[in-house]
Amino acid sequence: MNELERVDAYWRAANYLSVGQIYLLDNPLLKEPLRPEHVKPRLLGHWGTTPGLNFCFAHLNRVIERRDQDMIYIAGPGHGGPATVAHAWLEGTYSRLYPEVSQDEAGMRRLFRQFSFPGGIPSHAAPETPGSINEGGELGYSLAHAYGAAFDNPGLVVACVVGDGEAETGALATSWHSGKFLNPETDGAVLPILHLNGYKIAGPTVLARIPEPELIKLMEGYGYRPHVVAGDDPAAVHRLMAETMDTVFDQIAEVRAGSGDRPPMIVLRTPKGWTGPKRVDGRPVEGTWRAHQVPLTGVREDAGRRAALEEWMRSYRPEELFDGDGAPAEDVAALVPKGRRRMSANPHANGGELLRPLVLPDFRGYAAEVKAPASAATEPTRVLGAFLRDVIVANPDNFRLLGPDETDSNRLSAVFEVTGRVWEAEGLETDENLAPDGRVMEVLSEHLCQGWLEGYLLTGRHGLFNSYEAFIHVVDSMFNQHAKWLEASRRIPWRRPVASLNYLLSSHVWRQDHNGFSHQDPGFLDVVVNKKATVVRVYLPPDTNTLLSVADHCLRSRDYVNVVVAGKQPVLDLLPMQDAVAHCTRGLGILPWASTDEGHEPDVVLACAGDVPTLETLAAADLLRRHLPELKVRVVNVVDLMRLQPASEHPHGLSDDAYDALFTPDKPVIFNFHGYPSLIHRLTYRRNGHDNMHVRGYKEEGTTTTPFDMVMMNDIDRFHLVIDVIDRVPGLGDRCARLRQDMADERARARAHTREHGEDLPEIRDWNWPH
Amino acid sequence: MNELERVDAYWRAANYLSVGQIYLLDNPLLKEPLRPEHVKPRLLGHWGTTPGLNFCFAHLNRVIERRDQDMIYIAGPGHGGPATVAHAWLEGTYSRLYPEVSQDEAGMRRLFRQFSFPGGIPSHAAPETPGSINEGGELGYSLAHAYGAAFDNPGLVVACVVGDGEAETGALATSWHSGKFLNPETDGAVLPILHLNGYKIAGPTVLARIPEPELIKLMEGYGYRPHVVAGDDPAAVHRLMAETMDTVFDQIAEVRAGSGDRPPMIVLRTPKGWTGPKRVDGRPVEGTWRAHQVPLTGVREDAGRRAALEEWMRSYRPEELFDGDGAPAEDVAALVPKGRRRMSANPHANGGELLRPLVLPDFRGYAAEVKAPASAATEPTRVLGAFLRDVIVANPDNFRLLGPDETDSNRLSAVFEVTGRVWEAEGLETDENLAPDGRVMEVLSEHLCQGWLEGYLLTGRHGLFNSYEAFIHVVDSMFNQHAKWLEASRRIPWRRPVASLNYLLSSHVWRQDHNGFSHQDPGFLDVVVNKKATVVRVYLPPDTNTLLSVADHCLRSRDYVNVVVAGKQPVLDLLPMQDAVAHCTRGLGILPWASTDEGHEPDVVLACAGDVPTLETLAAADLLRRHLPELKVRVVNVVDLMRLQPASEHPHGLSDDAYDALFTPDKPVIFNFHGYPSLIHRLTYRRNGHDNMHVRGYKEEGTTTTPFDMVMMNDIDRFHLVIDVIDRVPGLGDRCARLRQDMADERARARAHTREHGEDLPEIRDWNWPH
Repeated sequence: MNELERVDAYWRAANYLSVGQIYLLDNPLLKEPLRPEHVKPRLLGHWGTTPGLNFCFAHLNRVIERRDQDMIYIAGPGHGGPATVAHAWLEGTYSRLYPEVSQDEAGMRRLFRQFSFPGGIPSHAAPETPGSINEGGELGYSLAHAYGAAFDNPGLVVACVVGDGEAETGALATSWHSGKFLNPETDGAVLPILHLNGYKIAGPTVLARIPEPELIKLMEGYGYRPHVVAGDDPAAVHRLMAETMDTVFDQIAEVRAGSGDRPPMIVLRTPKGWTGPKRVDGRPVEGTWRAHQVPLTGVREDAGRRAALEEWMRSYRPEELFDGDGAPAEDVAALVPKGRRRMSANPHANGGELLRPLVLPDFRGYAAEVKAPASAATEPTRVLGAFLRDVIVANPDNFRLLGPDETDSNRLSAVFEVTGRVWEAEGLETDENLAPDGRVMEVLSEHLCQGWLEGYLLTGRHGLFNSYEAFIHVVDSMFNQHAKWLEASRRIPWRRPVASLNYLLSSHVWRQDHNGFSHQDPGFLDVVVNKKATVVRVYLPPDTNTLLSVADHCLRSRDYVNVVVAGKQPVLDLLPMQDAVAHCTRGLGILPWASTDEGHEPDVVLACAGDVPTLETLAAADLLRRHLPELKVRVVNVVDLMRLQPASEHPHGLSDDAYDALFTPDKPVIFNFHGYPSLIHRLTYRRNGHDNMHVRGYKEEGTTTTPFDMVMMNDIDRFHLVIDVIDRVPGLGDRCARLRQDMADERARARAHTREHGEDLPEIRDWNWPH
Repeated sequence: MNELERVDAYWRAANYLSVGQIYLLDNPLLKEPLRPEHVKPRLLGHWGTTPGLNFCFAHLNRVIERRDQDMIYIAGPGHGGPATVAHAWLEGTYSRLYPEVSQDEAGMRRLFRQFSFPGGIPSHAAPETPGSINEGGELGYSLAHAYGAAFDNPGLVVACVVGDGEAETGALATSWHSGKFLNPETDGAVLPILHLNGYKIAGPTVLARIPEPELIKLMEGYGYRPHVVAGDDPAAVHRLMAETMDTVFDQIAEVRAGSGDRPPMIVLRTPKGWTGPKRVDGRPVEGTWRAHQVPLTGVREDAGRRAALEEWMRSYRPEELFDGDGAPAEDVAALVPKGRRRMSANPHANGGELLRPLVLPDFRGYAAEVKAPASAATEPTRVLGAFLRDVIVANPDNFRLLGPDETDSNRLSAVFEVTGRVWEAEGLETDENLAPDGRVMEVLSEHLCQGWLEGYLLTGRHGLFNSYEAFIHVVDSMFNQHAKWLEASRRIPWRRPVASLNYLLSSHVWRQDHNGFSHQDPGFLDVVVNKKATVVRVYLPPDTNTLLSVADHCLRSRDYVNVVVAGKQPVLDLLPMQDAVAHCTRGLGILPWASTDEGHEPDVVLACAGDVPTLETLAAADLLRRHLPELKVRVVNVVDLMRLQPASEHPHGLSDDAYDALFTPDKPVIFNFHGYPSLIHRLTYRRNGHDNMHVRGYKEEGTTTTPFDMVMMNDIDRFHLVIDVIDRVPGLGDRCARLRQDMADERARARAHTREHGEDLPEIRDWNWPH
């Protein structure tokens, strides 16, 4: 066989194995005529995209062999799972990782049977798939993942097949612009292969149905040099694809060498379900939407269909592709690269293998000095910025800070002392802090921030995504999918742990008074907590030092999604660093200086989580100390939200005894919370004394106003908390009617002041702590 | 003044009013030198984009006057709220709707003071803004809203300014393709104006920094004829913009007449903060990111800054623009169109004014015949498809069905008997069900489906969005923003009610066994319930007839977001239509034929919500009837989830008495729920007997398997429910150890069967109901 014949043989072998996975339980080599019991009772899988994915695999293997190219493969239409699995099996990786799926007839039988079968493997490219860093279910994130993988990986090419269905999604549509953020010298290259097979599930696709000149302009407009490979005659398309690949990889090398040219991409136009059944029941199938999933149905029951399936499978000439024992024949195996050059075994696609721990400066060195609790204020994210600046210095090639143009707005500006925003497009004199190899990535697309970061993490690096709290909902679905990826990966022994995905949500609900109702939404936490306790962590550090401690912890952690909510406005410094570390380590605890229970059973517990609710709780405790000095008040602050859950529900969960020791089993608890109150009930409803828990939080009241008006609108303000205490501690109601009225009057005065002058309440300067 | 001088005067007036809104409390006409007390204590607002928005307004007004053009305006960079408000005030609309903000000096003072001021108005284009259908906060949805507004509105032009920051978002990036779904003859036209001012908050924007030929190709690739208007000399840019507008509206007319040409769009490149301060403290401001928000700060405190502000405001020559009493001068007023031609008063932008109720066929006519409960099965969404088909026939120009290529997959295919998928791009012989004026809109972008539908609804029409349940999270943030829009609109008397946004979530968590873990997520309901009870409704009809009743109700409702979760697989028909209507009207109720309490106090309540959980609950009730016939079991089904909340929390909430009458105050309740169990606890935690409630639901366990394995993995299966009853009804534990073991054995057998054969449990055919 010549080279292209070997490529064709590899392709036919992959196609044969793909059809087998969709259809067969047994008789994998077709050593006997197909009988009903050889066929799966329930036919599942997506054939339509699969031959195209296989075609790309085969040609990329040819390039790897010719150029000794370091390359990974991202299957955008990853519902073509049979292709990615077939490829890993042909390369021997599958059998190494799953020895029972050996490279022989018995292994091939297992390979077929397990696909989309209970107890088997998913029908999409998934964590279980060797060589994959992209789930093929939700669609839209392949190209962002590809760029994320390429950043800081000079020498690596990330081949990314983009489906023409997927290309209609918002996330993918903006991902094409990622090239403006990729440095041709210090980053790797991305080779997008836009695969036009013309149909989605039932309807046509946009990019396959615009005039080709328009499509070419679109790709040129996105900043690429497009190369079209089109046809349906395999031999002709093989020749064209091979030539095009040679051209394209030459161009990639030139771009890397600093030619300044636009990078290449390929438009591959081949029939949907290529090489599959041409017609079924007189209706066209190959090249149409009917080939999307299972083109021949009823195969187990219908002898004619069975014959058609057998004919289809035999059309790949399996006897040439596998030896008598089922192993890939020599000509097929010849196209398999060696060792780590195999795309299914490339360590970049199992990034934990390459993970280097971050070199972290001692966060204690950035501490805010706290001479007395709550006596001075700092801006937590501004201090964190200094820490991150030094993280960037110490880790120049494996840490990135991402966000939608909010690094300055979120007051992390110190990072710009040592690096800039990555920018490869045109610059102007009036620009500031841009750099072609910057460590900060800003683009007004949460999808790109998230997708890039996922790709960066899954290939063994580290990062932090900072965002306005309300708009992180833009990537709810991407968070969901990443959390599911992590959860599934945990159960796969060969997947090595990767760095956690860290969110810093600043510009949060209580400080978006000026931006108004549209910017006020703390609900991301609710989305997060729906995911498995094994992979999600939520932190609400109340001040600067606790934020530093939490950030250090998150940057060291593996395989989690860490969500940190912290304000950018000045907040009172509560805890000296040593106490802050202890508090964060416990995850929650009593603030003794703010409490008046002095080790005794309290009359009431004021609990709080989040910087603004904590401030209001402290102010309420202060008011109570002044006005009701005999009342025993305990103030409990919660940093690690998952501590509230029972230990049976979350690894961080407190034991019931420890919970009772803090919150008491039977005293009123007024819990002032950063987010929607229901989340606290959700976490604590199995706890003793839950009926005594009264939660304040955001109740979807908001507008353009002052910060203190925001807390009043939602009843989390100090005055309302005092009223809550009066209403809920037995016996206080009658005794304190006057104080209750005073508090109500104070609120009314504060509100009127805000409305009249547009000003906030003056800050409290004379705290009454017993220092 | 000649025409362009009048345009310039209008622009200067709008700019003056915009600056005044950002800065002034008093002295609106600068009748005296600015004193500190004339200036707001807290300076808020976004100047950078504002002069560009004003420039477009002025030139579009010129077009409206010349051509008597029906037109609305969408401000993509709607954080430039001062512009949209200034425009509405100049047009007199503002004073008509808010009489206290009159067109005189006193009104101008109020106009300035209220902007971004407590008790005033938001700093973004918002529901409060006359003429707006697009919130300017989150960014990204303007162009999709514009297309939604244009569909089925022949004669209307929707001018849509797209900011170059916003253009980086995923949603906006794919929105450019909307033209492939717009019929030039039966729909209106969209005129995108891509406004390049070069910067976001702090960094440059992508589209402003690619070579112009590349940008032109991009826009041509998206299917437009771009026209560039660029410059910083107002007189020159006025001339160019006016000429371009004339060309562009001629082209729009030609396209509408069937020329087949691509529609025009404008690229407007002007300085950020145009006409504002050129430099401050020696640093450039106009034309840079420093002009993004408030270009001059410290104005109240600093006399020099105050002088600079005064100079800036006087540069607009207010004495030419307003008469001595503050009303717009004649030359400014001359550019204001008449009546409904004013973009701020166009009824399309207050769509409720144009809303016609849907003509609805009697849904009872589509009922599944139910001879006995649970004796036959139908596919709920397939039957709903027939109803929707006839809704489409009866409402040919104001109802659309949208979805990401899932209409067939979700089994609503009957609609294709009478209409097709909208498709304006190229067609092939192998296509099916495409039509240039189709009523079904399919694109693999939930963002586009949602954005188009929002635009369509807000301009007074009706629609339904069907989606896979897991992937509706893609538009969590858009849902949030729309719910906030509805909530804010409710409080604005002049905003007329619009049709509700209806979601049909099919292909839900319990029937995505074959697609695997990535397709399994019922958490959208949790996101929805975070929003105000006044605007959200959640329905889980358990069978076909209840789905029909719910759908009819939703299509008649106004100003809500209705979420309907319903399966596409065959489910047992439980209720004859008359009972189904009664059940849906109550929202929840006892299924007497499945219960054995016969009007007495039950020993246990089996509650359920959702089709699959209901089936399992019925099967559990059947098992209990067989094995423990003396046990008094009550089966309660919940259709309207909001009924579970206290009446104080939601308008649909049951009274506590009614709740207790159904669920009992003290008996064990085993609640089998479609989604994450915490949602039921959240809704019921204030109810009596909440401590006795045990909720089963999705606990994030999933993989590629069979449907029954899915329910077993999450413990919502019939056998586990029986075990729950045994464990929770006092006294049963000891007595029923054998039955408990039998149930556990049944589960193990079912699981083994699934794993071995890839088959589901056989259906129950011999229900034990006492028919």
